[in-house]
Amino acid sequence: MAIKLQGIFTPTLVPLDERGQVNEPELRRFISWLIDHGVHGLYPNGSTGEFPRFTAEERRRIVAITCHEARGRVPVLAGAAEANVKETLAACEAYHAMGAQAVAIVSPFYFKLSPESVYAYFAEIARHTPIDVTLYNIPMFASPIDVPTIRRLAGEFPRVIGIKDSSGDLAFMMRMIAAIRPLRPDFSFLTGWEAVLAPMLMIGCDGGTNASSNAVPEVTRRIYELARAGNYQEAMKWQYRIIELFDAMLFPFEFPDGFRSAAELRGFRFGQGRQPLTSSQQSDRTALASVLQCILADFELIDRPASGCAPRTRQLEQDKIEQVVFEVMHELQKRGVF
Amino acid sequence: MAIKLQGIFTPTLVPLDERGQVNEPELRRFISWLIDHGVHGLYPNGSTGEFPRFTAEERRRIVAITCHEARGRVPVLAGAAEANVKETLAACEAYHAMGAQAVAIVSPFYFKLSPESVYAYFAEIARHTPIDVTLYNIPMFASPIDVPTIRRLAGEFPRVIGIKDSSGDLAFMMRMIAAIRPLRPDFSFLTGWEAVLAPMLMIGCDGGTNASSNAVPEVTRRIYELARAGNYQEAMKWQYRIIELFDAMLFPFEFPDGFRSAAELRGFRFGQGRQPLTSSQQSDRTALASVLQCILADFELIDRPASGCAPRTRQLEQDKIEQVVFEVMHELQKRGVF
Amino acid sequence: MAIKLQGIFTPTLVPLDERGQVNEPELRRFISWLIDHGVHGLYPNGSTGEFPRFTAEERRRIVAITCHEARGRVPVLAGAAEANVKETLAACEAYHAMGAQAVAIVSPFYFKLSPESVYAYFAEIARHTPIDVTLYNIPMFASPIDVPTIRRLAGEFPRVIGIKDSSGDLAFMMRMIAAIRPLRPDFSFLTGWEAVLAPMLMIGCDGGTNASSNAVPEVTRRIYELARAGNYQEAMKWQYRIIELFDAMLFPFEFPDGFRSAAELRGFRFGQGRQPLTSSQQSDRTALASVLQCILADFELIDRPASGCAPRTRQLEQDKIEQVVFEVMHELQKRGVF
Amino acid sequence: MAIKLQGIFTPTLVPLDERGQVNEPELRRFISWLIDHGVHGLYPNGSTGEFPRFTAEERRRIVAITCHEARGRVPVLAGAAEANVKETLAACEAYHAMGAQAVAIVSPFYFKLSPESVYAYFAEIARHTPIDVTLYNIPMFASPIDVPTIRRLAGEFPRVIGIKDSSGDLAFMMRMIAAIRPLRPDFSFLTGWEAVLAPMLMIGCDGGTNASSNAVPEVTRRIYELARAGNYQEAMKWQYRIIELFDAMLFPFEFPDGFRSAAELRGFRFGQGRQPLTSSQQSDRTALASVLQCILADFELIDRPASGCAPRTRQLEQDKIEQVVFEVMHELQKRGVF
Repeated sequence: MAIKLQGIFTPTLVPLDERGQVNEPELRRFISWLIDHGVHGLYPNGSTGEFPRFTAEERRRIVAITCHEARGRVPVLAGAAEANVKETLAACEAYHAMGAQAVAIVSPFYFKLSPESVYAYFAEIARHTPIDVTLYNIPMFASPIDVPTIRRLAGEFPRVIGIKDSSGDLAFMMRMIAAIRPLRPDFSFLTGWEAVLAPMLMIGCDGGTNASSNAVPEVTRRIYELARAGNYQEAMKWQYRIIELFDAMLFPFEFPDGFRSAAELRGFRFGQGRQPLTSSQQSDRTALASVLQCILADFELIDRPASGCAPRTRQLEQDKIEQVVFEVMHELQKRGVF
Repeated sequence: MAIKLQGIFTPTLVPLDERGQVNEPELRRFISWLIDHGVHGLYPNGSTGEFPRFTAEERRRIVAITCHEARGRVPVLAGAAEANVKETLAACEAYHAMGAQAVAIVSPFYFKLSPESVYAYFAEIARHTPIDVTLYNIPMFASPIDVPTIRRLAGEFPRVIGIKDSSGDLAFMMRMIAAIRPLRPDFSFLTGWEAVLAPMLMIGCDGGTNASSNAVPEVTRRIYELARAGNYQEAMKWQYRIIELFDAMLFPFEFPDGFRSAAELRGFRFGQGRQPLTSSQQSDRTALASVLQCILADFELIDRPASGCAPRTRQLEQDKIEQVVFEVMHELQKRGVF
Repeated sequence: MAIKLQGIFTPTLVPLDERGQVNEPELRRFISWLIDHGVHGLYPNGSTGEFPRFTAEERRRIVAITCHEARGRVPVLAGAAEANVKETLAACEAYHAMGAQAVAIVSPFYFKLSPESVYAYFAEIARHTPIDVTLYNIPMFASPIDVPTIRRLAGEFPRVIGIKDSSGDLAFMMRMIAAIRPLRPDFSFLTGWEAVLAPMLMIGCDGGTNASSNAVPEVTRRIYELARAGNYQEAMKWQYRIIELFDAMLFPFEFPDGFRSAAELRGFRFGQGRQPLTSSQQSDRTALASVLQCILADFELIDRPASGCAPRTRQLEQDKIEQVVFEVMHELQKRGVF
Repeated sequence: MAIKLQGIFTPTLVPLDERGQVNEPELRRFISWLIDHGVHGLYPNGSTGEFPRFTAEERRRIVAITCHEARGRVPVLAGAAEANVKETLAACEAYHAMGAQAVAIVSPFYFKLSPESVYAYFAEIARHTPIDVTLYNIPMFASPIDVPTIRRLAGEFPRVIGIKDSSGDLAFMMRMIAAIRPLRPDFSFLTGWEAVLAPMLMIGCDGGTNASSNAVPEVTRRIYELARAGNYQEAMKWQYRIIELFDAMLFPFEFPDGFRSAAELRGFRFGQGRQPLTSSQQSDRTALASVLQCILADFELIDRPASGCAPRTRQLEQDKIEQVVFEVMHELQKRGVF
């Protein structure tokens, strides 16, 4: 029997080489580092993994590398959404063969579908998949999956074994848990919104698939363990710290560039992303990376910039500017201007 | 020095008599019952109190009755939003004279204002008010108040002493607390969304202004006390129960009719609301009130219907129908049909 | 029998004196000017008239002044929405007695009501009103009125004689006209969104209630007359000009401050609005008023600024800056700097 | 030099065979029929063509078949959006080689990008494409393209030669035309929202890419020709008729199933769509197809159902039910029940 999905699954970022192709050695190095730093599982082809920006072939290769490098040390939850049901089922079969524990399938996107059609889509997949399926609800990007639909799918299909929800809406999560746990105690509830990770664990979530764990796997694991142990007071201290980092990675960048910048500070090269940047965006990012470095340094995970860190205000535009001023002053001092 | 606002403040429903006027004796009886059942404060002229459906004179009278009946047993937070700054300030003065502890002022509504204009509005009030002011953020109905604006107001005006937020967004609440508590430890953070009351208390809220406390003041107080004592496991058990009730009062009714129906089950007559109902809405409400009665009976606060209670599914339309079937069967049995 | 509402009705701005009170002499002078400049009717207490920022007494006085000053020269459509049905009916009676031709009643706002409740609200009013009623649909600010609801109200209540729609959605307007005109050929369809005035007239609207007619009554009338005469090519030339002005009055200001600024350029004093401004907003408005002056000068309705006009780009922030540069250069030239 | 895109381009539906694969003979027959019935161009891989539900290989094949079958009789505007800039450019090259006149590229979807990033994406494509590019703005499904971004792209890149806008917002279209036509008189403005086709042509659009032209190419062409000839009165008569059909194809179905149903009534077999249907959806569609048949019969393009047509109310749920009643009555009559 399948083991319930729980803990923190990293929706892995994908390093690219100088030609813009998947950088396999760096991806392997990154995966091993994540496992060594305590993530409970890996989730390739998530939104953080920018699945829509890769080709179908590249998505397969990313899962293959991930499963191979994981070597059973942690389970792999493979993102398997493709252009249509038939292609998605083919991916399910492939990932099953590669040794993934389960797949995650995002609700249909581009077209916004009704609940009845969302049900029809997942039901057709659930009838034929050879591997367990996690529903992936991300209403800001894809057709929403509502509580009656989840309940219907959970009630009819044993292969549907969990939901990953990235709405960050606690009341919605409680409604799902109240509706489904009585009939399916094995069903996993994972949150994709680490801004509220500790509260989500307190209300009964089994874990999370959190982009931040690409950059600070130690911290997301700590919050998980503290909350699981019922030590909510301590969990909340870390929660307040991670929300600062999360906001600094999320808002001033296009997703997931801020998470990439922070993970680079941990010693990896992710290369140029596939969404092009204007030159003004590129210079912005240098300043923003300094702010991220200061936040990560406060976690004692890396060193501060040589020039030091400006006090942070939690107003990101202002933090960015102050950090730049700080670095320019440092440079001038070094040159003996003062 | 002012005492920090904390605990559960009831945004009181307003009983109407058969002519559609404020029913003063019933309002007094209701207020005393709320105080006797443990609410920490009263909040007349909130959204639950349907302030936009009363005239300016009626709003004053409602606060006057509330302050008089409270007799200092609990603090009164009086909703003071009027047509413009001058009228609002006049209400602030009046409520100050009546003995309210503070006022709550909803962000400008109808017109959707920019953050700069929301700031200008509250700043003008804060400069001249003789009584402490709580900001009221309810983005589904009024111009949103964002974190930089709250921070600006909290930093500049000692008279601004708290915020009531009805968004139910935990990440937003954490961002507010992180931005403001360091500079204003006296600042109160109250949540108006009891679907997430226990999690909000866990992340550091000082209390709530919760419509549900009109119907189940014992339960909202219990959640508050358990959470304050750090007993989150137990608080969450009650939280899961109150979300079922909250959803059953909120979704199938026009707000705040479901809360009125539930409070009537506690022994009060609220009369016909000011928003007219069609006959199909009226018959719907009878069936829905039976569902509410069953939920309240599970809390052991009132008796179950004579005809008994159908099992609930948490799908409200279905619960409503099943309850009606249950009652019809009971009636037929009584008449000897079976 | 009532005459069908048609033509351009001005949702009149309200001049305030230095104490912030309704400036009656200036309001009278403004009303007469509008009539002299060709508006077909007057619409006090609209959104442009900022009805929510006045007290119930002030709203009555504004209609009384308007009816008195109009002296039957043009019909008055009086905004009559008050706190609840009873108060609204009292306003209907008062405005009927004052000689208004009809009232306009905005859909319930603050609370967002279901179509069934919107129906119940207007049905209750329609049953008791002594004066014809125009529904007012403004979904960005108030509960939307959908086509089945309008059809139901138009079919059941002869007193409901028209709709003013401010959504600017042409397809929605066509759906309304197709659903209602066959049963109620007398029903009036008015658009409140002059960005699309000529196209709305082409698809069959009877007229408009357009904020821009406060500033350029000659232009809105011309578009109306050209479109009514079937001269759409010519109407569209003016339409392209008015959208530039409309955007410049609408977007960079809080509504309706830009319309007030433009109307001031026609020779009226509207005073400080009731929504306070920060000092940075105030200095912004000076620059923006220069841009408005240049646009109005191109219509040959007023003179250009002494300093001249920068070429406009239709990007408002940029236009504002360029106009300021232009004026500063002029000042420096005058002082002999060049 | 390239010819300006104008007229009605059909975003072609894709027939599938019983195995769910592209049905090439039927697609060829359909394309030729469209050309014979007066469409000015073909637009494979649009939203109506469900490009996200096909694989990259299938999308190429669809364009290849379309170009081959068109044989230069009408221009082909090929949808070329792929997973990333590099893949999109490869598609541009392929479609150029196949003889397409231009490509249409939808703004990035799934992730919602800022205007600066939307610019960066199209700029990178525009720098390297060997074929003219039409921007495709469909804000309900993809990152919106705002006026300053379109202006920037149109000003910098001669290869960007037009925009297809599916917002249906006339004011937005006028703002685009006002901003861009003075600098780029060759730039094409196409509307994808035939609910407002005649008004869009009146304000200056060059044509449309309209899903309805799959079912009624004669009617969309007639509207185009009447509007181009300045005969707006007559164009509007047809516009009112097409909006009824459009609504009946759009709202009660998942897009583009209603358009497929209507096109099937013209004599084509489209097969089962790739999005699965529940059995309740399937039986719904039979009833809805009867309504579509009645509307098309009123255009005198096909025969009415043997059982006749219920009067239509333009309330689709009600029309569907009445049509079913009508058909059942007919069946009973045939069986001699009456």
